[in-house]
Amino acid sequence: MSTGAFSIDQLMELAGLSVSQAVFKLHPPSKGSRVLVACGPGNNGGDGLVAARHLWHYGYQPTIYYPKQSKNELYQRLKKQLEGLTIPFENDFGKAIGETDHIVDAIFGFSFSGEVREPFPSVIEALEKTRIPVLAVDAPSSWNIETGPPESGPGRQYSPDALISLTAPKPLLKMYRGRHFVGGRFLSQAMAEKYNLDIPPYEGLDQVVELRVEGRKL
Amino acid sequence: MSTGAFSIDQLMELAGLSVSQAVFKLHPPSKGSRVLVACGPGNNGGDGLVAARHLWHYGYQPTIYYPKQSKNELYQRLKKQLEGLTIPFENDFGKAIGETDHIVDAIFGFSFSGEVREPFPSVIEALEKTRIPVLAVDAPSSWNIETGPPESGPGRQYSPDALISLTAPKPLLKMYRGRHFVGGRFLSQAMAEKYNLDIPPYEGLDQVVELRVEGRKL
Repeated sequence: MSTGAFSIDQLMELAGLSVSQAVFKLHPPSKGSRVLVACGPGNNGGDGLVAARHLWHYGYQPTIYYPKQSKNELYQRLKKQLEGLTIPFENDFGKAIGETDHIVDAIFGFSFSGEVREPFPSVIEALEKTRIPVLAVDAPSSWNIETGPPESGPGRQYSPDALISLTAPKPLLKMYRGRHFVGGRFLSQAMAEKYNLDIPPYEGLDQVVELRVEGRKL
Repeated sequence: MSTGAFSIDQLMELAGLSVSQAVFKLHPPSKGSRVLVACGPGNNGGDGLVAARHLWHYGYQPTIYYPKQSKNELYQRLKKQLEGLTIPFENDFGKAIGETDHIVDAIFGFSFSGEVREPFPSVIEALEKTRIPVLAVDAPSSWNIETGPPESGPGRQYSPDALISLTAPKPLLKMYRGRHFVGGRFLSQAMAEKYNLDIPPYEGLDQVVELRVEGRKL
């Protein structure tokens, strides 16, 4: 999809902001302020890094799991912004998952290739098993963007409690049964029509909107 | 001030988002949806361009006055983003001011040099005289960042209804008597302490906070 003159910095900031607002709507900090943000190596992970910064400003205590860090300067800056807030990075996912109230799954998203490389298989297995509420960003990690969960391997039974679709719902939504948000309030009507997207009505200043089951459309 | 690993794209997005939220809190679209965003040639104007886009998404009908357009690619992109939403640009400020419910003054801000060049003297005179509510971004245009309104010329009697200080209040606030917001929820405690800034407590997901007179500090 064309980004319509938006820079990646701008889009990632708006995407991460949406993710942070979905976390707040699901679990305000009064319901547990510890949030583990699991970040993958690509854009999905970048959205997670941005979200973690906003969550900190809302009063959460984020911890970042970011085992495969991009050398790209944008990601390096996003990481530095978190370090400036003294947000901790934790490399032991098993430890981190035992010390959190909520989880953001920002490991793989729209451009997931179907191959879950180390160290992510065990991370996805942990997400599959945990009872701690998980919000997945754009796609439950390991899911195919078109067809949903993999037929075998890590993630085949993974179904996060909540999902936030960035810009527009993806086809995998057919296979998904949980709470569903849409975020990214920046699309023009012309772009929406060009890509045949059904933009939900946002309320007030919200950067995120929850779609009820009856309103679920692709 | 160091930007702490933030890109200008990111900072401008967050600044403009704050400005748009202040407009919403002052005058929700139900109280008049037409908003004239007057943009200067520099960063203050860029904040206005971003704000206008968010205002459009909240349901406002923005019009942009942007007579001295920057050739910088960031500003060109911000302009294209507005064109993608078919937001109109109007070159006749006298006409535009007659067809709006609120005004955002994003002409000059923090780095204003003290010289009001054409075509802005008559624009500032119009802002001085109008009864339409004005929100100024970071500084009422023509005001000196330290000392406030100019002693002579356009702006000497200009006092907008509302002001949004980005990141932190500026010294000119001593001379200002109107509603006052602070925006830019991204500062670390370390940066705040380094620059001796008093960060106000933001509520919930807000990117903006109104300071009451008793809470006004520099």
